[in-house]
Amino acid sequence: MTDQQAKRVWSEAELAELATRALIGLGLTRQDATDAARVLVLAEMFGLSTHGVSRIESYGERLQIEGINPRPSITLESVAPALVRIDGDNGVGPLVGMRALDAAMEAASTTGVALALARGSNHFGPVSPYCHIAAEAGFASLIGSNATTTIAPWGGREARLGNSPCGFGFPNPGGDPIILDMAISVAARAKIRNAAKAGQPIPDTWATDRSGRPTTDPNEALNGFLLPIGGHKGYGLALIVDLLAGVLSGAAYLTHVKSWVDSPEEPQNLGHYFLLIDTRRLGETNWLSARMNDFADILHSTPSADSSTPVLVPGEIENRNLARARREGVLLDPSLLAKLQAFAGSAAAA
Amino acid sequence: MTDQQAKRVWSEAELAELATRALIGLGLTRQDATDAARVLVLAEMFGLSTHGVSRIESYGERLQIEGINPRPSITLESVAPALVRIDGDNGVGPLVGMRALDAAMEAASTTGVALALARGSNHFGPVSPYCHIAAEAGFASLIGSNATTTIAPWGGREARLGNSPCGFGFPNPGGDPIILDMAISVAARAKIRNAAKAGQPIPDTWATDRSGRPTTDPNEALNGFLLPIGGHKGYGLALIVDLLAGVLSGAAYLTHVKSWVDSPEEPQNLGHYFLLIDTRRLGETNWLSARMNDFADILHSTPSADSSTPVLVPGEIENRNLARARREGVLLDPSLLAKLQAFAGSAAAA
Repeated sequence: MTDQQAKRVWSEAELAELATRALIGLGLTRQDATDAARVLVLAEMFGLSTHGVSRIESYGERLQIEGINPRPSITLESVAPALVRIDGDNGVGPLVGMRALDAAMEAASTTGVALALARGSNHFGPVSPYCHIAAEAGFASLIGSNATTTIAPWGGREARLGNSPCGFGFPNPGGDPIILDMAISVAARAKIRNAAKAGQPIPDTWATDRSGRPTTDPNEALNGFLLPIGGHKGYGLALIVDLLAGVLSGAAYLTHVKSWVDSPEEPQNLGHYFLLIDTRRLGETNWLSARMNDFADILHSTPSADSSTPVLVPGEIENRNLARARREGVLLDPSLLAKLQAFAGSAAAA
Repeated sequence: MTDQQAKRVWSEAELAELATRALIGLGLTRQDATDAARVLVLAEMFGLSTHGVSRIESYGERLQIEGINPRPSITLESVAPALVRIDGDNGVGPLVGMRALDAAMEAASTTGVALALARGSNHFGPVSPYCHIAAEAGFASLIGSNATTTIAPWGGREARLGNSPCGFGFPNPGGDPIILDMAISVAARAKIRNAAKAGQPIPDTWATDRSGRPTTDPNEALNGFLLPIGGHKGYGLALIVDLLAGVLSGAAYLTHVKSWVDSPEEPQNLGHYFLLIDTRRLGETNWLSARMNDFADILHSTPSADSSTPVLVPGEIENRNLARARREGVLLDPSLLAKLQAFAGSAAAA
């Protein structure tokens, strides 16, 4: 790879083609690869590079040992007019996710509201791309997934639930949607790792040590458990995500979710939920955009505690990043690019 | 009132009759009063006495000056098979709430999933009674309401959103449902008032002063704003509740919600959402109860950080209180009883 290649700027279409070819190289069909790539590329355009096309590398490790099935037979079952069940057959998460999202949007177009519950899936990427795709099509969305256990139940000292991601999206016809995409922990594990590397203490609200007691020592925290936001409230919210994504879907839940790290060759059987509301049934486009713009205006016009940081609306930074990335393209880390190209190369060779 | 009356124990049926008669005394029809009382009595049985029949007193103040309409014409509009819109005509909140819950359960029985959006409503009591009623009928539920503004947007210094209550319920056929009922603030305002009375400092995570800066002084906090759980995450969650309950329903939202205290004679136009999933479509009763019991067992068997406080599942304390209250009855505060009897007496006199 030349320096020029490493520094080149990628358009959304080019990045999608690269990601698609990498996934084809890992064994997916072109159609499946295209659908899965869409989620990861959108994450990259949002500036969420930790959850963007870099994920193809970790998915790839498991695809190559068939811990993830590269050629799944994903099946859909309509159990009621507004309720669809999806079996992902251990396919790549964003592929199963896109199939479930599409099924939920189709059902909600008919019934006004619909829920797709997916089982037999894997890490499905960040939530915001799904919410964005739904919002562009006029749907409000509540979407989430369960995850490998990293959080102890409130008052406990053993990891028994995941730091489950959940997201919410609200369309604003002609403007930017409001999208909240969050995990339930106060801080991400990566932030604790960074503090440990820097030899810095962490706030005692981030994590506990191994015995379940709050700690300011990042090394103790890495051997302990992430703390949920709001104590028992966040613990409860993480359970709700798992009840929807895991228990109701027929997927694994809590400690039944296999660890990606400890058993990479075993199916994780993760579950997801996609709950959609067709806002077009509620009023004219203008009705909704007037309300959404007014809603954002009320928040934006709040006097800020620190005049250098204005009040934001959830998803605002990602919306701005997306607009800029679509205008200017995005850069890729050279080593990541090399890996994607190597995966893509095996597709060309195959 | 004799001492004996003050100390008597009330059964659920007796309390329901007392609450119903009090609401009739405040101008409601018997049917409307019965439905509204059901929510408040269930709250009382859960041990949530701050959100139980005592609310009839504050509803009563507004009913008597017609800030709440005692004889609303509540209308339902089915905008899609799984989507119902309700106009509460400024009726008592728990009455509008029960009408919306019933409409959502009826639609979800047909379509598997359904959403009822209510506008033109008032404070609808706590969320857990609705989730409990839904769970008893086999429905998982996501229910919430917007509220008078008490929280500043994250980084702001003016109250522009409510401490919106939201709840989630999951049925466990033959056993106890899992129910989470929470507001988005770290702590309730009442806890800050208690600290102020006791002259005790509060943790700096509970509230900010008037300028939006975290404070440990409860008096400064009472002039400032409640802090949401998880900072920007809780801020986002409070907005999501208002987007569903306020923006999509056609109700007021954010600062458009009128203050109950400042303008008791003006309609608040609160909104609620009731999103229901018919779990009977997903598997046999035994399938769900096996999964729900296993889910609770995994949590209960977690070693606890402090051996004197075992790990709990959301709603466990309320479920226990309900069982005991149904066995033994509940006590009422004598001054509250006197007020309810006075309201009920005006019904008898009318």
